[in-house]
Amino acid sequence: MSEREPLDADLLPSGAPVDELPDAEVMDSEDRLRPGFVGRVLDAVHDGDGETARALVEPLHPADVADLIELARADEREGLVAALAELVDADVLAELNEHVREILISEMAPERVAEIAGELDTDDAVAIIEDLEEDEQRAVLRAMEPDDRAAIEEALTYGEETAGRLMQRDLIAVPAHWNVGQVIDYLRSEAELANDFWEVFVVSPSHHPVGTCKLSTILRSPRATRVAAIMVEEQTLIPVDMDQEDVALRFQKYALVSAAVVDASGRLVGMITVDDIVHIIQQEAGEDVLLLSGAGDGDINEPLAPTIRRRLTWLVINLGTATLAASVVGFFQSEIAAFALLAVLMPIVSGMGGNAGTQTLAVTVRALATNQLTSSNTLRMFGREFKIALANGLCLGVLIGSGVALLFGNTTLGMVIGAAMVINNLVAGTVGILVPVTLERLRIDPAVSSSVFVTTATDVMGFFSFLGLAAAVGLAG
Amino acid sequence: MSEREPLDADLLPSGAPVDELPDAEVMDSEDRLRPGFVGRVLDAVHDGDGETARALVEPLHPADVADLIELARADEREGLVAALAELVDADVLAELNEHVREILISEMAPERVAEIAGELDTDDAVAIIEDLEEDEQRAVLRAMEPDDRAAIEEALTYGEETAGRLMQRDLIAVPAHWNVGQVIDYLRSEAELANDFWEVFVVSPSHHPVGTCKLSTILRSPRATRVAAIMVEEQTLIPVDMDQEDVALRFQKYALVSAAVVDASGRLVGMITVDDIVHIIQQEAGEDVLLLSGAGDGDINEPLAPTIRRRLTWLVINLGTATLAASVVGFFQSEIAAFALLAVLMPIVSGMGGNAGTQTLAVTVRALATNQLTSSNTLRMFGREFKIALANGLCLGVLIGSGVALLFGNTTLGMVIGAAMVINNLVAGTVGILVPVTLERLRIDPAVSSSVFVTTATDVMGFFSFLGLAAAVGLAG
Repeated sequence: MSEREPLDADLLPSGAPVDELPDAEVMDSEDRLRPGFVGRVLDAVHDGDGETARALVEPLHPADVADLIELARADEREGLVAALAELVDADVLAELNEHVREILISEMAPERVAEIAGELDTDDAVAIIEDLEEDEQRAVLRAMEPDDRAAIEEALTYGEETAGRLMQRDLIAVPAHWNVGQVIDYLRSEAELANDFWEVFVVSPSHHPVGTCKLSTILRSPRATRVAAIMVEEQTLIPVDMDQEDVALRFQKYALVSAAVVDASGRLVGMITVDDIVHIIQQEAGEDVLLLSGAGDGDINEPLAPTIRRRLTWLVINLGTATLAASVVGFFQSEIAAFALLAVLMPIVSGMGGNAGTQTLAVTVRALATNQLTSSNTLRMFGREFKIALANGLCLGVLIGSGVALLFGNTTLGMVIGAAMVINNLVAGTVGILVPVTLERLRIDPAVSSSVFVTTATDVMGFFSFLGLAAAVGLAG
Repeated sequence: MSEREPLDADLLPSGAPVDELPDAEVMDSEDRLRPGFVGRVLDAVHDGDGETARALVEPLHPADVADLIELARADEREGLVAALAELVDADVLAELNEHVREILISEMAPERVAEIAGELDTDDAVAIIEDLEEDEQRAVLRAMEPDDRAAIEEALTYGEETAGRLMQRDLIAVPAHWNVGQVIDYLRSEAELANDFWEVFVVSPSHHPVGTCKLSTILRSPRATRVAAIMVEEQTLIPVDMDQEDVALRFQKYALVSAAVVDASGRLVGMITVDDIVHIIQQEAGEDVLLLSGAGDGDINEPLAPTIRRRLTWLVINLGTATLAASVVGFFQSEIAAFALLAVLMPIVSGMGGNAGTQTLAVTVRALATNQLTSSNTLRMFGREFKIALANGLCLGVLIGSGVALLFGNTTLGMVIGAAMVINNLVAGTVGILVPVTLERLRIDPAVSSSVFVTTATDVMGFFSFLGLAAAVGLAG
């Protein structure tokens, strides 16, 4: 990266040559590996020159090694991973896309998987092991150290996508009667402790959390200060069975860096840190556009067959609703036969309703997902969307209506399409909020199922209002 | 919150009564204020009982006070804020939705705004001040302390949505030759230092970053240890002019908790912490669904007029493309007049193409946004989407083709609609990836402009392939 500062060589304790560090030839300014670099590594692998491949990859961050493996074609990956050998370590596997990882892991001996899982934090190890087939899972667990094994087996007892799967069990918990000096001495004496912690949890004798201390507070307080005097008592506790989406929202809302996880009796059982949460925030926020389109999780590394199956299921459902909408047109065949211009204009009304409905739907789904839209302001949102739909409908209606009237010299036709446009915009605005809000109340993910209802409504009402009005005023004649 | 553990009263240094803490009556399990609670506060304000309102709100976290103000109707907010008085402090304003905040701030004297900004970190103060009109901005800056003013004026010299606006200037930088004891003594002696830091930056005499130390590492090392011996030299530096979306991706990719911001000459000028990034990650990931629908940033607190203007602009553009697609139908009026069933069936072909195109589009836009799709694997993605489109097109084509053939007893019509469905699915799959990838190459946000191109293509090709084939085989006759 061009912004990486060349290091002052005399300050470096180790002697790694500076020119091995990633630079502008390796990555672009947005942290993407350049195709030229990817090609050089793969060419070296292809030529059997594992040494060059390893020399190129060695300076990369594990997240970039994972990217490299993902960017390689499926048939190149096995060779690449074999050539990179020990560079594909536990950290790289933890960063790897789950579909790609699943294939790599399935090629490994259970003992090797157990060894890798043993090197990782509980949450990362669980992420690797939870995707395995049951018998593979058992084989890997059998090969693990008893301690690690117990931690993972416990994590697996919690539901998928809950706090229990995300949390680490390694954390620092101290009694409130300790002073800062005791905390520091404890931290210095325990070589086994994890290093990735940002806060110390203060617990009661029964191991209930009573407060937290930021490490900066501890560092800045004299040794004699009692922990109870500097801890923050207001804490955000995470129940162990909380859904990961809610955990992510809570971290975001309260700007948390780490949080204590408690079991049903309120005892401290683990800790979640923000670095385990950012990818969930990203994933949960980004999935709405994929779910609304029926593309599932939209992972480009997913094997082809399940991807096709998922998308096709959605398309077949939509084929059903499209047929339903078409049957509305079917009622007006004689009008269309008599006046084919109706068939030319009708998709404009239905399509524009679909566009307006999609806008309202997108806004509603996001507002629900970010907890901005709650039962306190649903009615107000309805009113807001109705006003927007009315304003837009009137503008679009006048525009298309006068255009059609002028172009075809037919004022009645202009008035019919204008009125239909207003009606369908109002339908779009109403349905675009009603459907996701109702699904949310029914505890169905509005992102998964809303759009098929909304577009069906705008198609059906688009055709019906336009062709129905045309028939009513005798335009067909 | 039900999961908030009752505190052991004897461990609390202050005497805040436990029953004032938020509980299940105040918030639901997803951290949303309950409508009953919101109503109680607003009723108290309405009855002129400010004391009750303040007693209810006092135990809330600033983020929840901000939510409360957002959940109130626009005409209730002024009264609410007046009644809550000093409870609406700098932290609450920092958490508030920008549109709501803008209105509240515009009612305040510049001196009060300056006072609030002075209490906040630079990044939060900038967020408040950058939205003001230029003359208000000047008045507020004039009323600020010279130090704070200089910090904010400098931040405002950086472009909007860049690292320079996000960063804090308060950070801990130490020379590499210090030992741990010196760092701790320095931290203890400087009362003015910020408390929200998680890493210490190690700098050269010219103030270039040479490494970072996690606070946990410092806490766990003996006092005599040299900083140079425990610092991590591999750092991720953020250029001060980097776009906030790229900053967010970098934090996420490398699981950063904080990062040094450097100017063009590589000198350390600030620090960004992950809590300032999580809402950007959320916002950038969630905006694709809004942008693709033409709903702008989809903020439900935005005033009505700009919302209508933004959505209408998009709808008018779509009206143009819908008219274009309709004109394709116009070429086939005589066929439709002779065989009105064509008009009934044609929206199925165009609509299904739109659905399939939206799937590919959503997957492509997300893969581009998360840097999963790069120039290294674009060609492969094309192949993947083509295969999916072919498989889905064939399935849907056979389904609708045989259905139509059976239902209407017209094998030719069935074959025509089946073939058109295959063609339009291939168009959808190709255009659904080609458009966003091309826009990205042209440095245009694919989420903003892709969908209009894709649906125009699937509409036009849907109508053209179906009606054109029908005309070609003489179905109209």
